[in-house]
Amino acid sequence: MYIGIDFGGTKIAAGLADQKGKLISKITVKTLKTDNSTVIFSQLIEVIETLKKRAGKRKIKAIGMGIPGQVDSKGRIFNMPNVLALVGKNVLSELKKIIKIPVVIENDANAAALAELKYGAGKNLDSFIYITVSTGIGGGIILNKKLYTGANRTAGEIGHMVLVPGGPTCGCGNKGCWEAVGSGTALSNMAKAKILSGAKTKIIELALGDINKINGEVIVQAAKQNDPVAIELLDVNAFYNAMGIANLVNCFDPQAIIIGGGLSFNGEYFFKPLKKCLKYFKLLNSRNSIPILKAGCHKDAGLFGALSLVLL
Amino acid sequence: MYIGIDFGGTKIAAGLADQKGKLISKITVKTLKTDNSTVIFSQLIEVIETLKKRAGKRKIKAIGMGIPGQVDSKGRIFNMPNVLALVGKNVLSELKKIIKIPVVIENDANAAALAELKYGAGKNLDSFIYITVSTGIGGGIILNKKLYTGANRTAGEIGHMVLVPGGPTCGCGNKGCWEAVGSGTALSNMAKAKILSGAKTKIIELALGDINKINGEVIVQAAKQNDPVAIELLDVNAFYNAMGIANLVNCFDPQAIIIGGGLSFNGEYFFKPLKKCLKYFKLLNSRNSIPILKAGCHKDAGLFGALSLVLL
Repeated sequence: MYIGIDFGGTKIAAGLADQKGKLISKITVKTLKTDNSTVIFSQLIEVIETLKKRAGKRKIKAIGMGIPGQVDSKGRIFNMPNVLALVGKNVLSELKKIIKIPVVIENDANAAALAELKYGAGKNLDSFIYITVSTGIGGGIILNKKLYTGANRTAGEIGHMVLVPGGPTCGCGNKGCWEAVGSGTALSNMAKAKILSGAKTKIIELALGDINKINGEVIVQAAKQNDPVAIELLDVNAFYNAMGIANLVNCFDPQAIIIGGGLSFNGEYFFKPLKKCLKYFKLLNSRNSIPILKAGCHKDAGLFGALSLVLL
Repeated sequence: MYIGIDFGGTKIAAGLADQKGKLISKITVKTLKTDNSTVIFSQLIEVIETLKKRAGKRKIKAIGMGIPGQVDSKGRIFNMPNVLALVGKNVLSELKKIIKIPVVIENDANAAALAELKYGAGKNLDSFIYITVSTGIGGGIILNKKLYTGANRTAGEIGHMVLVPGGPTCGCGNKGCWEAVGSGTALSNMAKAKILSGAKTKIIELALGDINKINGEVIVQAAKQNDPVAIELLDVNAFYNAMGIANLVNCFDPQAIIIGGGLSFNGEYFFKPLKKCLKYFKLLNSRNSIPILKAGCHKDAGLFGALSLVLL
């Protein structure tokens, strides 16, 4: 048996799976808000112990864990803005002290890219870039059927490619990052700014009058009701996502782009404007086009990503 | 013996070298301006025959050729705006008809990256991105000590990464490409615009009053004389080049960046503002910095690039 852990800033989803990746048991807990790393390690170990019990006599061969940050080759975490308590900590060595099972830790978008390679839309591809468009924007790069991680295991930080010089400030400190202009959060921020500057739109009604309740889903709902402001916002969002994709294609020349993450689950309301906007950009890959594929691992994508780290 | 051909839009530089890459003989001819591909093929063959004669009894083992465009795996050329006559032609099969020597053709920036790996600043590196900043901007990507060419042999078209949405139109058709804002041509265009809008600067004096004589060299000369407009222009140019580099680092996580090409030959007038501007950008590679190296193969870079394609 194998354990996959999708460790997120708000929740920890963990699952027990057989060697074919079939999910047998799953638990989800809220990530404890604390600046004490020991508390979080205890929470992680509790999750693992619970799944071990559920496995019964079946042996756990390995644990894969996806994290919303970077991890160096020794297991030390860095660049993890949503769980600052663990930054600088060596998660691998902490877990090894207590859990006598091999553990593999990887950035969550990288793990999700592996899941697409093994179980999803990338099964028949040699090279692709997986992009998650959600509250943030992350990426995982598959070259020659392998995860490409770079010299410091930080390749694929595509969300921090600057697309708009001097643009909105990103969580990383850069201005105008792809994440700061193309993510679900950026889309919501644009909607809020529109409303605060007096635009008439169904978005605020659908958010029940509360500007803080505006999110990608609400904006898509408004677009479904032909709200022109919502449609325009989705177009602007698509423009930046197309720009980021075009830049990746001209640098990496992959066979395809695979897109997952919350905002992309809105189907044609996400993909149609994206494909339209891609035509504004010249792709130098001889065909001037690139297949845009929907991620295959929608449900429990993070969990399958984590399992992909340890399953063959 | 080996032949290297640096096939450019304005000139063809070709050289005869031994197996250690030592240049024994060199010729340079102007590329014939014609829309007849047969004429260009004849010119190429004449160049090769001349070098073969100079080799005397020594056998030519292989010919490497760098071109300012893309070539597919079969030898067909595409994306070569400076020599349109050859676009769509299979250079490999045309040469093979007449020359009974193995020929390898590659994009010139890719070839220059290989030269840096074999003879230049990248000798001790596993991964780096070579960037040429000249009339255009090109790139060559080295991963695991190998040239990374992508799914369609068009990886590394970094000059067509869009940095300024809606920016100046690029030769490729995109707006705001790195090449359109950071190249020597872009720098000259900015200077021309400044002068036409009434800016007082030594640049126009140094160009002998002829706006068409403005180029990177003239602008650097003005900067050396403390001309504030020239210094500002070099800063703006450096900002875009730093932005492009930061984007590459966050996507590829290479060990280093190696820079060559005409504009970079201005030494500190190019590298000092570039390194200053790089500090504006967050690099997520755990060190938040990247070594910026000067290309080792300055002189005859194109020729050594071409030779690198066939020399071990």
